[in-house]
Amino acid sequence: MEPLQNRQWKLIARPVGLPKRSDFEFVASPLGEPGEGEVLVKVLYVSLDPAMRGWMREGRSYVAPVGLGEVMRAGGLGRVIASNAPELQVGDFVTGITGMQDYLVSKPVGLNKIDPRMAPLPRFLGALGMPGLTAYFGLLDICDPKQGETVVVSGAAGAVGALVGQIAKIKGCRVIGIAGGPEKCKHLTEELGFDASIDYKSEDVLKALATHCPKGIDIYFDNVGGDILDYALALLAFRGRISICGAISQYNAIDQIQGPKNYLSLLVNHGKMEGFVVFHYAERYPEGFAAMAKWLAEGKLKAKEDIVPGLETFPETLLKLFSGENFGKLIIKVAGE
Amino acid sequence: MEPLQNRQWKLIARPVGLPKRSDFEFVASPLGEPGEGEVLVKVLYVSLDPAMRGWMREGRSYVAPVGLGEVMRAGGLGRVIASNAPELQVGDFVTGITGMQDYLVSKPVGLNKIDPRMAPLPRFLGALGMPGLTAYFGLLDICDPKQGETVVVSGAAGAVGALVGQIAKIKGCRVIGIAGGPEKCKHLTEELGFDASIDYKSEDVLKALATHCPKGIDIYFDNVGGDILDYALALLAFRGRISICGAISQYNAIDQIQGPKNYLSLLVNHGKMEGFVVFHYAERYPEGFAAMAKWLAEGKLKAKEDIVPGLETFPETLLKLFSGENFGKLIIKVAGE
Repeated sequence: MEPLQNRQWKLIARPVGLPKRSDFEFVASPLGEPGEGEVLVKVLYVSLDPAMRGWMREGRSYVAPVGLGEVMRAGGLGRVIASNAPELQVGDFVTGITGMQDYLVSKPVGLNKIDPRMAPLPRFLGALGMPGLTAYFGLLDICDPKQGETVVVSGAAGAVGALVGQIAKIKGCRVIGIAGGPEKCKHLTEELGFDASIDYKSEDVLKALATHCPKGIDIYFDNVGGDILDYALALLAFRGRISICGAISQYNAIDQIQGPKNYLSLLVNHGKMEGFVVFHYAERYPEGFAAMAKWLAEGKLKAKEDIVPGLETFPETLLKLFSGENFGKLIIKVAGE
Repeated sequence: MEPLQNRQWKLIARPVGLPKRSDFEFVASPLGEPGEGEVLVKVLYVSLDPAMRGWMREGRSYVAPVGLGEVMRAGGLGRVIASNAPELQVGDFVTGITGMQDYLVSKPVGLNKIDPRMAPLPRFLGALGMPGLTAYFGLLDICDPKQGETVVVSGAAGAVGALVGQIAKIKGCRVIGIAGGPEKCKHLTEELGFDASIDYKSEDVLKALATHCPKGIDIYFDNVGGDILDYALALLAFRGRISICGAISQYNAIDQIQGPKNYLSLLVNHGKMEGFVVFHYAERYPEGFAAMAKWLAEGKLKAKEDIVPGLETFPETLLKLFSGENFGKLIIKVAGE
């Protein structure tokens, strides 16, 4: 049998500003056999995440940057097609850091077997994957929402934001989502049960927040940074909590990141701003996964994926995250099941 | 008997940038008698605090701004010289919001009787007053220091900072203080037991912090804001905590406040930045006062006041806070005991 050809996206330059096609190369090479204790995984879906932009950058962060010439790091889902490891069998479905490629040869460590009967496969990269756990811990652990509190979430139609808002509703909060465009905003209130939505592309966000949050903002879940973080600070309620999950407005900044100039609202209001990365909660993943699965099964949570076919589309598809074009969890379908 | 003349500093203009003499007027007028249920207090000492700059500013904050034409708000200490209220007797010493004036006519509410045998009177405006409580709650409640942790404090030779560092030492932490000038820096390490000090006027603060905090900063107690807050964020340890007590570098900013551009370090390091105003702890003042008094009595805490004679010096004396000229708790002596 001829060896399988493995197509891989490699990072070959550190992007300046928005990542572009020439920062990567798309190469195919023959795949080696899995060694002793290793498995061969055929990648079916890969996840596109704002965090990828950080992984392309040199310097101190929560994980090492992707090295130049290395396969671009990506979370993904695949099927085991060969196994020399007792932990996984041919036919098992797994999630993990598959990389932006057709096939992964790996030890089983870091690969999580999932039950494909539970949900459509892409959901394991969304509500039942890292975005789901991010929403769960980033809202509940950092902000501890109480019944009747006012919760604002930005990037509210994105993979994490849509779940944050719905979890806040489950906890009895009033939820205001900020998203771009009338279609997304309508989705939040009509499909996901948000109490209100604000279209940052057409509305004065500060004014709209003041209208929708007459008693101030108890909890702000921040996916975007920039001006919207400052507006939330300006309207923070006493003992307000801000969860810093991301800052997509700033990830492609060429110069300095825009710091929140209203941060002294924390002092006046005894507020807290706390950041996190979902990996910090690794020990509690089973708890988060179980809760998300239960709410999904009960119909209390709705999940939405935005699936783009073709590994070859990676650089262009990635840009949808930064233009706000994606609607739901952005995923590339690499191969049929 | 002729009525007493009460000299008062009134705010007559909202300062732009540093407060100046012409933002105030110094007027004397005859004092009225205390009414039923009121006391007359002769002010002996008044406290000069960075917070005063905020009180002069219009807009939403934790207390209403001082109105134009009103006596400048100030904490102070005085002696009751006439009483029509059963709660206080002539001869009692009290602290409270006396205002920047010679005499106060007031109901007893908000005045706290103190025991003058416990400590020299000015100490009740410093280590045994609001600065002491600010240091106590702002460090212990917000940051929960653990033995062996690395604590950095800015404004370390100031009223609050010097106490924060000493309390952190009592809790078994390694303490690095940032202050201006060799005399203050020497005081921190040689008199107050800090492990190291950094002279922001002559040293590269980021470099010095990196040297003194090889494992990162577990706790940063911020009195200054600006670049130093950004340096602390850059060096924050995992699960680091930042207490936002003040931002004296920014209080006179004419344009925008400088937001911390390194705030995403909170995300990477699961850090927390929390603000407070000492008044939020009013219910726990007895606990804080008792602890501070005990540590002072045991010699574990040293207190230092910087006393300037003469109510008439107020506008010039206030500027010492912003130039960093004061050394210890800045107080004006209004009258002899």
